[in-house]
Amino acid sequence: MTMMAPLADSDLSAEAAAVFADIRATRQTEFVNNFWRVLAHDPVALKRTWESIRQVMAPGALDPLTKELIYVAVSMANSCEYCIRSHGAAARAKGMSDAQFMELVAVVAMAAETNRLATALQVPVDDAFKQV
Amino acid sequence: MTMMAPLADSDLSAEAAAVFADIRATRQTEFVNNFWRVLAHDPVALKRTWESIRQVMAPGALDPLTKELIYVAVSMANSCEYCIRSHGAAARAKGMSDAQFMELVAVVAMAAETNRLATALQVPVDDAFKQV
Amino acid sequence: MTMMAPLADSDLSAEAAAVFADIRATRQTEFVNNFWRVLAHDPVALKRTWESIRQVMAPGALDPLTKELIYVAVSMANSCEYCIRSHGAAARAKGMSDAQFMELVAVVAMAAETNRLATALQVPVDDAFKQV
Amino acid sequence: MTMMAPLADSDLSAEAAAVFADIRATRQTEFVNNFWRVLAHDPVALKRTWESIRQVMAPGALDPLTKELIYVAVSMANSCEYCIRSHGAAARAKGMSDAQFMELVAVVAMAAETNRLATALQVPVDDAFKQV
Amino acid sequence: MTMMAPLADSDLSAEAAAVFADIRATRQTEFVNNFWRVLAHDPVALKRTWESIRQVMAPGALDPLTKELIYVAVSMANSCEYCIRSHGAAARAKGMSDAQFMELVAVVAMAAETNRLATALQVPVDDAFKQV
Amino acid sequence: MTMMAPLADSDLSAEAAAVFADIRATRQTEFVNNFWRVLAHDPVALKRTWESIRQVMAPGALDPLTKELIYVAVSMANSCEYCIRSHGAAARAKGMSDAQFMELVAVVAMAAETNRLATALQVPVDDAFKQV
Repeated sequence: MTMMAPLADSDLSAEAAAVFADIRATRQTEFVNNFWRVLAHDPVALKRTWESIRQVMAPGALDPLTKELIYVAVSMANSCEYCIRSHGAAARAKGMSDAQFMELVAVVAMAAETNRLATALQVPVDDAFKQV
Repeated sequence: MTMMAPLADSDLSAEAAAVFADIRATRQTEFVNNFWRVLAHDPVALKRTWESIRQVMAPGALDPLTKELIYVAVSMANSCEYCIRSHGAAARAKGMSDAQFMELVAVVAMAAETNRLATALQVPVDDAFKQV
Repeated sequence: MTMMAPLADSDLSAEAAAVFADIRATRQTEFVNNFWRVLAHDPVALKRTWESIRQVMAPGALDPLTKELIYVAVSMANSCEYCIRSHGAAARAKGMSDAQFMELVAVVAMAAETNRLATALQVPVDDAFKQV
Repeated sequence: MTMMAPLADSDLSAEAAAVFADIRATRQTEFVNNFWRVLAHDPVALKRTWESIRQVMAPGALDPLTKELIYVAVSMANSCEYCIRSHGAAARAKGMSDAQFMELVAVVAMAAETNRLATALQVPVDDAFKQV
Repeated sequence: MTMMAPLADSDLSAEAAAVFADIRATRQTEFVNNFWRVLAHDPVALKRTWESIRQVMAPGALDPLTKELIYVAVSMANSCEYCIRSHGAAARAKGMSDAQFMELVAVVAMAAETNRLATALQVPVDDAFKQV
Repeated sequence: MTMMAPLADSDLSAEAAAVFADIRATRQTEFVNNFWRVLAHDPVALKRTWESIRQVMAPGALDPLTKELIYVAVSMANSCEYCIRSHGAAARAKGMSDAQFMELVAVVAMAAETNRLATALQVPVDDAFKQV
């Protein structure tokens, strides 16, 4: 088998099962999505990735919804269908409205256009932006 | 000449000059950055791009700082140095703190990692995410 | 028809059939995958691509499995599902274990994260790295 | 300031200084490159990233040079100059020869070409690759 | 609902319906594809995007088929399946032959390879190209 | 040395020198740009790449200027500065006007925006486009 199948709870190693317990406790839901079930084939990577994402997405100088909006936007820029859908659902759960979603999409697309314009035209960086 | 040099105010066509006037009035500063000065070689594109970005970035369901943070994040995902620097400066002007910037960067990088994991492992989309 | 359908053996031009014979002889299998069957609509491109890949992937300073691992890693970075699956299968055939596959994925994802960090933060290249 | 300047040793927080000490001990050199000096503005991110990369790049089912070659290849695919140069230097330090480097580059470029061909032609995934 | 479903004609706002009428008049067909039907959830974005694309794709210094070929090529480079298929169909409608399509694909793939080579090898820009 | 320096004519292997002679004869100029001078460290890759590009860019169902415009557009989409500049110069040499260049850039940027919209919104492919 080249590609790894999602693991059922009954197939988890002890270390992976402990991470799943923490995911369930943190998110307060029994549902564990396929991303973690595939990554569970490598329990060390599972634990490292889960702990990193929990740390990065915790409330800080940016609130959780803003962080989730940024996550969705980057997933769109990186063309990751799985991540657009899973983090889109997470943003919904944190309160993203339809109007906010459509505005997010508009900013992502507008940035794609002007990013490409700046690169295509090889626009020289202004001194004002170099100093900052 | 293959690449287009930024145009000085004195070299602008009438249509481009009108757009520059609107940029200055909207932003309340005399400074017009190189992006617009290069795009001014095509006044129709200049006008279309400026009016689109003004519309997209206007306050709406998302506040202007959140939109700017998303713009910066996407520019990072698209590896556009000019846009990282210019929209980074814009986000600063709208109030982004050092701590917010570093958290933004952490989310962008974390998303890049999990986007790649989901793609590399070809994780199947959960039924729960297909319904949404 | 916009998109090209994979060609059956009976639909090949003489030049394409000759390339298929070489693919079969080199790989020692009757199976020719869809990539070549679609490319066969342009026999010149088929021949050029096959001969290039045969040359690039031949044993050299790097062994065939290492080359295949690099090929899979790049296909993941480029988000090409077809190539992840086909070169993943090729790497398996050359001996890649489950553990090696999961470590490969971890390196690809980690690189994606630090690549993005370096770009997002516009880290200046150290003098030590410029000299090399 | 929008972009963060690399921090000198004298400007490090206690937590960042501890990470730098670990980097120096692990790598057995006094030199700490700019990537870590910029990331040191966020000591939590610095510690998380360093510990993750140390774990991912440790010897395992793949040897350290193979992991480094994959890291360089992915950095090339992601167009990250800083990472191409810094991990290129790391690969050299681990024994990569000129010939191995040029072969690595050839595989990365060949994969870029066939990745694009498969996507451009929307080649359907063979059943044989779906099963794996 | 996270992802937006394509809107039927009967579900359109007045502003969206006006844009659809213009799309139909311009293209001289009743068929309106899903791209516009999903974007219709945000009538302002729908109108802005349609008017921009109509302006950009109008005959000018480049003829409509050449513009469409460039559009398809960029969609391939950006790995956008929807756009490869929809603009591929548009290019067919404007006269693209099978042979032209296969040559287009070959150029896109060749550029992907040499783009990656130039980046991987960090080839310094020639003075001759800087002057232009 | 990690990165390879461009080779002077006096440092070329016999096989590389033969390729340079062919480049000069084909292009009818003594100037050989750095791309080939760096690639010359691997004469086999040099020969393969040069022969491939000469074949792909030869007149066919698409004329040489159209091919060059596509090459530039893809190089912009792939954010390759070297290639934007070198193939931009080549397009100029084949007759690309300022107006054509600016229209090319507009199409590349517009495609980037709608590519991203289609991906961000996960627009389902119309049946009409699947059939083709």
